[in-house]
Amino acid sequence: MELHELIQSLKTDEGGKIVMVVSDGIGGLPLQPGGPTELEAASTPNLDQLAAKGVSGMSLPILPGITPGSGPGHLGLFGYDPLVFQIGRGVLEAAGIAFPVGPNDVCIRCNFCTIDENGLITDRRAGRIPTEESVEVVKLLENVKIPGVEVFVKPVKEHRFVVVFRGKGLGGNVADTDPQKVGAKPLDPVAKDAESEKTAQVAKEFFNQAVEILKGQPKANCLTMRGFAKKPSLPTYKELYGLDAAAIAVYPMYKGLASLVGMELVGSPASLQEEVEVLKENWNKYDFFFLHFKYTDSRGEDGNFEEKRKMVEELDKVMPEIASLIGPNDCLIVTGDHSTPAKMASHSFHPVPTMIVSDLARTDSCQKFGETEANNFGGLGHFQAIHLMPLAMAHANRLGKFGA
Amino acid sequence: MELHELIQSLKTDEGGKIVMVVSDGIGGLPLQPGGPTELEAASTPNLDQLAAKGVSGMSLPILPGITPGSGPGHLGLFGYDPLVFQIGRGVLEAAGIAFPVGPNDVCIRCNFCTIDENGLITDRRAGRIPTEESVEVVKLLENVKIPGVEVFVKPVKEHRFVVVFRGKGLGGNVADTDPQKVGAKPLDPVAKDAESEKTAQVAKEFFNQAVEILKGQPKANCLTMRGFAKKPSLPTYKELYGLDAAAIAVYPMYKGLASLVGMELVGSPASLQEEVEVLKENWNKYDFFFLHFKYTDSRGEDGNFEEKRKMVEELDKVMPEIASLIGPNDCLIVTGDHSTPAKMASHSFHPVPTMIVSDLARTDSCQKFGETEANNFGGLGHFQAIHLMPLAMAHANRLGKFGA
Repeated sequence: MELHELIQSLKTDEGGKIVMVVSDGIGGLPLQPGGPTELEAASTPNLDQLAAKGVSGMSLPILPGITPGSGPGHLGLFGYDPLVFQIGRGVLEAAGIAFPVGPNDVCIRCNFCTIDENGLITDRRAGRIPTEESVEVVKLLENVKIPGVEVFVKPVKEHRFVVVFRGKGLGGNVADTDPQKVGAKPLDPVAKDAESEKTAQVAKEFFNQAVEILKGQPKANCLTMRGFAKKPSLPTYKELYGLDAAAIAVYPMYKGLASLVGMELVGSPASLQEEVEVLKENWNKYDFFFLHFKYTDSRGEDGNFEEKRKMVEELDKVMPEIASLIGPNDCLIVTGDHSTPAKMASHSFHPVPTMIVSDLARTDSCQKFGETEANNFGGLGHFQAIHLMPLAMAHANRLGKFGA
Repeated sequence: MELHELIQSLKTDEGGKIVMVVSDGIGGLPLQPGGPTELEAASTPNLDQLAAKGVSGMSLPILPGITPGSGPGHLGLFGYDPLVFQIGRGVLEAAGIAFPVGPNDVCIRCNFCTIDENGLITDRRAGRIPTEESVEVVKLLENVKIPGVEVFVKPVKEHRFVVVFRGKGLGGNVADTDPQKVGAKPLDPVAKDAESEKTAQVAKEFFNQAVEILKGQPKANCLTMRGFAKKPSLPTYKELYGLDAAAIAVYPMYKGLASLVGMELVGSPASLQEEVEVLKENWNKYDFFFLHFKYTDSRGEDGNFEEKRKMVEELDKVMPEIASLIGPNDCLIVTGDHSTPAKMASHSFHPVPTMIVSDLARTDSCQKFGETEANNFGGLGHFQAIHLMPLAMAHANRLGKFGA
């Protein structure tokens, strides 16, 4: 029996609420052997109090030694094995602008490029056309009409935009059209399997109409298409866990990832404090809340230990407000999708300190929230991130007994 | 996606060097509850210093409770699931004398035996003929010629020798010819599948010619054949990890195992100190070094706690020289292929203390190298040995990010 089958067979309709606070890239490294990590260097009285009340452990995002990108990192936390459910680049780009990708959608990462009078590419990024300008050019492409297929065109940034074809019988397996060099024409979209023949034709038609529309544009007079992809067939949070789930995030990428698993995007928060407000406002409407905090990752990526430490302290400040919502049946999780040590200025493979606070938690000896305490004393031990959701369900009393 | 696929897709061409020191059977048991293991009883200032700088953990060679032989133990450390990649006995015997087994080779463990004038076995081991004598008899068998097949005959020890048939279309699935009792004739080699028909015929022909050649030998006048096997189809270290790998070992068995995964055998060291010299001499030529130390296992197998403790101290003495080679990007591992507690005088199933020293290691609270510290505070937790190579690659900054 597979994990998903098991969980589906055990989920109950009752139980407490679950709040999963994901502090992106929260795990870190000491600058010197024996020194504190960013999290340990931070003053976190509230997180520490919660750790003392709850149970901690170390989450392995994928497998030992494997560094995840944001997509696989979040899929793992949501309980979907990232090695099974792989998100294609086009879908990730669409998720990155919070486009609600559906099951009949083929998503494509597109670049504006510049071609000369012979149709040969002279600039593969259309002079990195500024976003303000490309937004306007993207709007023109909304005029492309293809019978039987719904077409969405959405700006991303500078020369990058997303095209989505929605329709029946569209496979996601089409080769890139970017020739990867100047002085060549964009390639024709070629299907790599029989199911994607129609997609290739639709893409060719899109290209032809687009080039007609873009004629006369000074820079963005053509386009290339890459990363054709359909959304993997993911059961929704409702199907898998029986949970009405809400996602609260500032950045589009994380909204997009949450929407891939059927979470509803609530509010339009612009800060952590606003995210907490959205959480409070929606408390009675959902069973599960994913609350994403970006800046621990951002400052880690900057290689700035001190600023990452401060971001941890920002998170710490809102914890009492979040924790005050947690009733006797409920379950609060604090974790991260991966580590982002300032020392490495990048995502890393290191396990992620994680805690679960619930009346059902078997309290361990951890008195602080941090890598060393969680590692030395964590009652959850080292576990793969895909097991966090079953643990959450269990700690919210939402899973029945397996077997009699 | 499988582990090997994943690693192959993430490996980079750059990064640091990896040194894997395998102290065979290093894990042990206390003689009394609460007492130290052999490793803990030893004075190991250098290993302890490295443990304080690095990250420790407990490696499970196969699965909890499973005691590995040397073959599966090393395959696991090298990152090949020993339950998937099984090495047949014939191949293991060939590896044990460092015979370079190729993809078209069928390897067979052979025993000299003694038959009477009726062809009935009177001694299944030819009176345990001394090695000096059997080496000469094995030489006679080099005269066997079989059209279309290359034949290798190599002495092992006493009555044991190895035969290898090299050629196309030779399957490895042939039944043993040892009747397992005296008073019976050796059985005919019988193919157990269609692909092995030719092998069975070749084996019969080998047997017939051999018996002719051995006529008149006082003891070794016949032979039995067991453990017919081909090498499993293993990706090489280069293919799997992108690593140019060197193996440094005194004993043939470990050279043979390393050559199965495509490591180059360097030097002809006869002692640990000479192994370290070979490591230094070859430092610039390879990305990965497997350095094997045998005697912790040997003294454990002898049931000699005190002597095993001393062997650990021998290992400790060379650690500074090895560690001095490790630069900021490099990664040093100390581990074992299994435990060999003197208390049991045999291989055992107990997890193996393991450490990784690297600038990317998340330092843990371990201040010594030993079972208790690694278990209590090890930042690597308990992990299956097949994950050690991905961890090594990660700690040498040789793996890219999975997904965006």
